[in-house]
Amino acid sequence: MRQVDLLLHSAGQLCVIPSRGQPQRGNALGDLGIIADGAVAVHDGTIVAVGSTTSLQQTYRAHLEIDAEGQCVTPGFVDPHTHLPWFGDRANEFEQRVAGASYMEIMAAGGGIMSTVGNTRNASLDQLVADNLPRLERMLRYGTTSAEAKTGYGLETAAELKQLDAILALHQQQPVELAPTFLPAHAVPSEYKGRTSQFVDLVINEMLPAGAEWMRQYQTQLFCDVFCEEGVFDVDQTRRILEKAAALGYRLKVHADEFVGLGGTKLAVELGATSADHLVKTPEADIASLGQGKTIAVGLPGTPFGLGHSEYTPAKAILDAGGALALATDLNPGTCWCESMQMAIALACRYMGLTQAQALVAATLNAAHAINRGAEIGSLETGKQADILILDTPDYRQLGYRFGTNLVKRVLKKGTIVSES
Amino acid sequence: MRQVDLLLHSAGQLCVIPSRGQPQRGNALGDLGIIADGAVAVHDGTIVAVGSTTSLQQTYRAHLEIDAEGQCVTPGFVDPHTHLPWFGDRANEFEQRVAGASYMEIMAAGGGIMSTVGNTRNASLDQLVADNLPRLERMLRYGTTSAEAKTGYGLETAAELKQLDAILALHQQQPVELAPTFLPAHAVPSEYKGRTSQFVDLVINEMLPAGAEWMRQYQTQLFCDVFCEEGVFDVDQTRRILEKAAALGYRLKVHADEFVGLGGTKLAVELGATSADHLVKTPEADIASLGQGKTIAVGLPGTPFGLGHSEYTPAKAILDAGGALALATDLNPGTCWCESMQMAIALACRYMGLTQAQALVAATLNAAHAINRGAEIGSLETGKQADILILDTPDYRQLGYRFGTNLVKRVLKKGTIVSES
Repeated sequence: MRQVDLLLHSAGQLCVIPSRGQPQRGNALGDLGIIADGAVAVHDGTIVAVGSTTSLQQTYRAHLEIDAEGQCVTPGFVDPHTHLPWFGDRANEFEQRVAGASYMEIMAAGGGIMSTVGNTRNASLDQLVADNLPRLERMLRYGTTSAEAKTGYGLETAAELKQLDAILALHQQQPVELAPTFLPAHAVPSEYKGRTSQFVDLVINEMLPAGAEWMRQYQTQLFCDVFCEEGVFDVDQTRRILEKAAALGYRLKVHADEFVGLGGTKLAVELGATSADHLVKTPEADIASLGQGKTIAVGLPGTPFGLGHSEYTPAKAILDAGGALALATDLNPGTCWCESMQMAIALACRYMGLTQAQALVAATLNAAHAINRGAEIGSLETGKQADILILDTPDYRQLGYRFGTNLVKRVLKKGTIVSES
Repeated sequence: MRQVDLLLHSAGQLCVIPSRGQPQRGNALGDLGIIADGAVAVHDGTIVAVGSTTSLQQTYRAHLEIDAEGQCVTPGFVDPHTHLPWFGDRANEFEQRVAGASYMEIMAAGGGIMSTVGNTRNASLDQLVADNLPRLERMLRYGTTSAEAKTGYGLETAAELKQLDAILALHQQQPVELAPTFLPAHAVPSEYKGRTSQFVDLVINEMLPAGAEWMRQYQTQLFCDVFCEEGVFDVDQTRRILEKAAALGYRLKVHADEFVGLGGTKLAVELGATSADHLVKTPEADIASLGQGKTIAVGLPGTPFGLGHSEYTPAKAILDAGGALALATDLNPGTCWCESMQMAIALACRYMGLTQAQALVAATLNAAHAINRGAEIGSLETGKQADILILDTPDYRQLGYRFGTNLVKRVLKKGTIVSES
């Protein structure tokens, strides 16, 4: 008998999500590798064995045993696209929007992204951390054990660095691990209105080097992301920013084709970006490119939903092209305030045509690859971190089928219970 | 100082939802009657005073004080259209549907409503109760304090009465009050395939009298509902059933215009039905009729969402016609397994064009009128039951704006805390 910290046993369905070191690509997406009456042995926060309850109980003696009581067990969700941290809310603006106000009227009334930028610039680091801790607690309760978090509500060097500091503080103060992304090119701030190219120069000459210095100081991986969109940053500006970022040691991400198919997806693949995100209006040729490169396509179905739209990421075309598809929430105060990856799964099943199994892999293993952590998280395989969910149902197919509530009962982070509902 | 059981105080926004004994009709929908720093005094489960914290603290001494700590306080949600109780699930069928199977293929594989009918017929009363208690617990946690519950998965007399017995048992065993509805005309069971008029005869001659006998035995209000839809029960059959039901003492409801605008809404108004529900394809003339009668129009946005559709109840037209609009979940295992009225609100804001205030009134006061309980529940007025929610936010406008998670922190039923998240 080998002594381990934890033996989780009697999972009606243990969803391993076999990876072979890779995301699940194309129409191979959706292999859950279910073990009936499954068990996981954990030591030092790491999975040391996965198998049937009978076999693991014969091999391992554990300090703590958790009986899953026949419920379904999955890897923790990974949310690879959030706009944490921000300060304040825009509930008033949402009210104006549903009452029929146009985007321009809302902007004129002080709404839109610059409203959040103003709040975030004015908040102290401590205020920013305090405002975002409850959002992370909610994410955890709904099953997210790792997430990406972006700057982009500073849009000036000091405020962008303050957001990076807030991400680091939030990462340290609660269980959800955060992968930081630097997004000074999220919007053109009002003070640069009509002078986009000068703002791009500022990003390239001052902000990116400052972020790279932060990255060195904390010896952490940092992504650089750009909002490549009509009226924001065009493909050439996006390329200039990302090429500089790559030279400074950032990994790359792109907000691509959310409202207009500009070419951001193709650029992302060409530059070897870790992910290209949104992809609602992506042209066919750009979808084809996803089959060739390593870039993960990240669908954010909460955003069209949040906006009351009816067009979503064309998942089937991406899979037919051999692309690797992940899901994320896009959690942000403007278009999509939703902390729950279960909601992203429910939307993806209905409006992107994914089966529950495909959506679950997209929300775990492939999402881990979308933040370059596919080697450590996203599946229940030996050697990976023990980030584990015990659902409130024996059948993974209830994810997506049921919606609007929480089907996660217990959340384990590195083998420790961190949330119970 | 007057002694009371409970004083709930320091609500940042106390949403009274003034009723004047009536639902809020037409474009007057959305009056929340907010009291800043509000308080509610409760005695014997009933609201005895509503006002500012200062004034109520000067007048009342309470056995229990609850400090809302500046959060928003609202009436409990009323869910006036659910298909509780049923047995089992149809997660496999949902998987087939998102993978592209047609409705006919799913029926051929044993799916569709008859699958749930088979499960529900085979379940014992105890099994039926046990299977549905967790759903009610979830409804309560998400803020529903009263709900309607329908039969309709029996489709034969004994099994329909077993469902009524289950509703009564569920009503007695947990805090959510249930208003029972008899719906033997929910579908034509397979054994009557091609013989709809004979099934209608059975409903009229055997089932309705049996339900009426049950109603007398338990001295409870009972609704009769019919699924008036192309290929199910036409307007004439619906009229025959409802006229007989009215004669037997039932109050009336109609499933109208979900897929085809047959005329069910107009019939409901003509017959003085308490509510007409779904109303997605309602013809303009039928919408106009809602402005004249007492019938409440119940929008069920979870159902088009659950089906991945993009057409919803035309709320603005209903309000422009002077109709009284309520919201419900339509909780059921086929098209919409969602226990959360917060999700119905979020969908109504995005796809029915309601503001958060309109949706909140539709989910409380008007929903109470849709089950003929507008005099007792649905608002925080003196004399009403103390069914109260303390939200996890100071601003009611976060309902609808945020989605997919639970913004209800504490639920009080008749003045007692029954759920905390």
